[in-house]
Amino acid sequence: MQPMTPMYRDEEDLRHDVRAACVRACNLCAEACNSCADACLGDPAVAELVICIRTNLDCADMCATAAEILDRFRGYHPELARAVIEACATVCDVCAQESRSQADRFRRCEIAADACETARDACRQMLAEPALV
Amino acid sequence: MQPMTPMYRDEEDLRHDVRAACVRACNLCAEACNSCADACLGDPAVAELVICIRTNLDCADMCATAAEILDRFRGYHPELARAVIEACATVCDVCAQESRSQADRFRRCEIAADACETARDACRQMLAEPALV
Amino acid sequence: MQPMTPMYRDEEDLRHDVRAACVRACNLCAEACNSCADACLGDPAVAELVICIRTNLDCADMCATAAEILDRFRGYHPELARAVIEACATVCDVCAQESRSQADRFRRCEIAADACETARDACRQMLAEPALV
Amino acid sequence: MQPMTPMYRDEEDLRHDVRAACVRACNLCAEACNSCADACLGDPAVAELVICIRTNLDCADMCATAAEILDRFRGYHPELARAVIEACATVCDVCAQESRSQADRFRRCEIAADACETARDACRQMLAEPALV
Repeated sequence: MQPMTPMYRDEEDLRHDVRAACVRACNLCAEACNSCADACLGDPAVAELVICIRTNLDCADMCATAAEILDRFRGYHPELARAVIEACATVCDVCAQESRSQADRFRRCEIAADACETARDACRQMLAEPALV
Repeated sequence: MQPMTPMYRDEEDLRHDVRAACVRACNLCAEACNSCADACLGDPAVAELVICIRTNLDCADMCATAAEILDRFRGYHPELARAVIEACATVCDVCAQESRSQADRFRRCEIAADACETARDACRQMLAEPALV
Repeated sequence: MQPMTPMYRDEEDLRHDVRAACVRACNLCAEACNSCADACLGDPAVAELVICIRTNLDCADMCATAAEILDRFRGYHPELARAVIEACATVCDVCAQESRSQADRFRRCEIAADACETARDACRQMLAEPALV
Repeated sequence: MQPMTPMYRDEEDLRHDVRAACVRACNLCAEACNSCADACLGDPAVAELVICIRTNLDCADMCATAAEILDRFRGYHPELARAVIEACATVCDVCAQESRSQADRFRRCEIAADACETARDACRQMLAEPALV
């Protein structure tokens, strides 16, 4: 049976500012991807943007979930947190490439691509914290 | 630039019923985990169940996201879908163990544990489909 | 300060089966609307279906939120639950009409329209329960 | 049948900055409420905080949904958007009172109460825009 009170990890294992930066980057990426998806949906060229829309919706969902799970992380089940953050880094990387391929045509796609890269890098930095290894 | 019309994968690469079973198992797991978390929250022994609640909330979020992303999957960016389904299988496996450890005390935890195992196995079967390899 | 243990409402105020039916109808509606939105997104006629897609995404979000909130409802703050279920009934009604207008062309829109009407009616029945008045 | 291209509302009917402020306030409220719920969940006094946790989870869900729906709003179906924003204002108001009642004990509850009031007021301002009347 689990202990009565949660055991919090030491600050050395999981730096508060690294975690906070990752949560924030994921939430901002979710916002940017949702905005990009919605603007593409309203674009006259929507038929050419279907993959971009779907990838942005995927990335928004994954980032929002990763942010919530990371926010709840207290050192228990590090393999759970690790799997989620790794998946989020991969999804952000794919979406960054997809959005970057449209960045010449649409400023919103460039913004989404930037947000995806920032979130991907924040996830990778998070994965280097001892609490997640 | 991406093609004008989405290219759908061949039925041999991604069997419709395997995908549908995985989406459904993830959605049912999300429901079971949300119910378990909420019932534990209302339990007089809530202070002993905090890790169980957090793990169930994590699993509910991950499963709901995986189901949405898998539902949108059309063969593009298989590395994105693969990363998400792998993470979902891991989260379900952790949550199954956590819930199983409470299954003697609470019937709802047993139900959640069963739903987690079903979703985990459906994710693993999905990962064997050629479209995701 | 709030009491130490949650006070559950009497079964006469909130019939368990009415609530369960409403939660289920909202979740099924969310699934149907997400599927409809995604299929419309992949349709060659996507440019004509933008309003239908947006309305379906709105309805899916509102229904999923209503289901979660209703699932957590224990008799406290009935004005909160009432506001959410009323909004859900309105959103379902609007989406039912929007989807019905496409039902001749697309079977998926007909399915979504049916699910919206079922969820709308379940919400209205829920609103007649004494616990929510 | 709906027109081929979406009809965007005039800027006079729906001021861009009023909408953007409302979306932002709702998203920040969702973050604050999720954080408050999670911190309460990890508090030794968790058993006294169950209603506060549930209300915060409700408010976080409603605000996130309202933000997404408002972000997608293009002047169509104003009754849908109106119902959602009205519900969000009510939920924020209830959660503000609930969180305020704990603000003496916990700084996080005070932060959540402030965020709820800001989001409630932003929703009410939004409801005064002609596009939503």
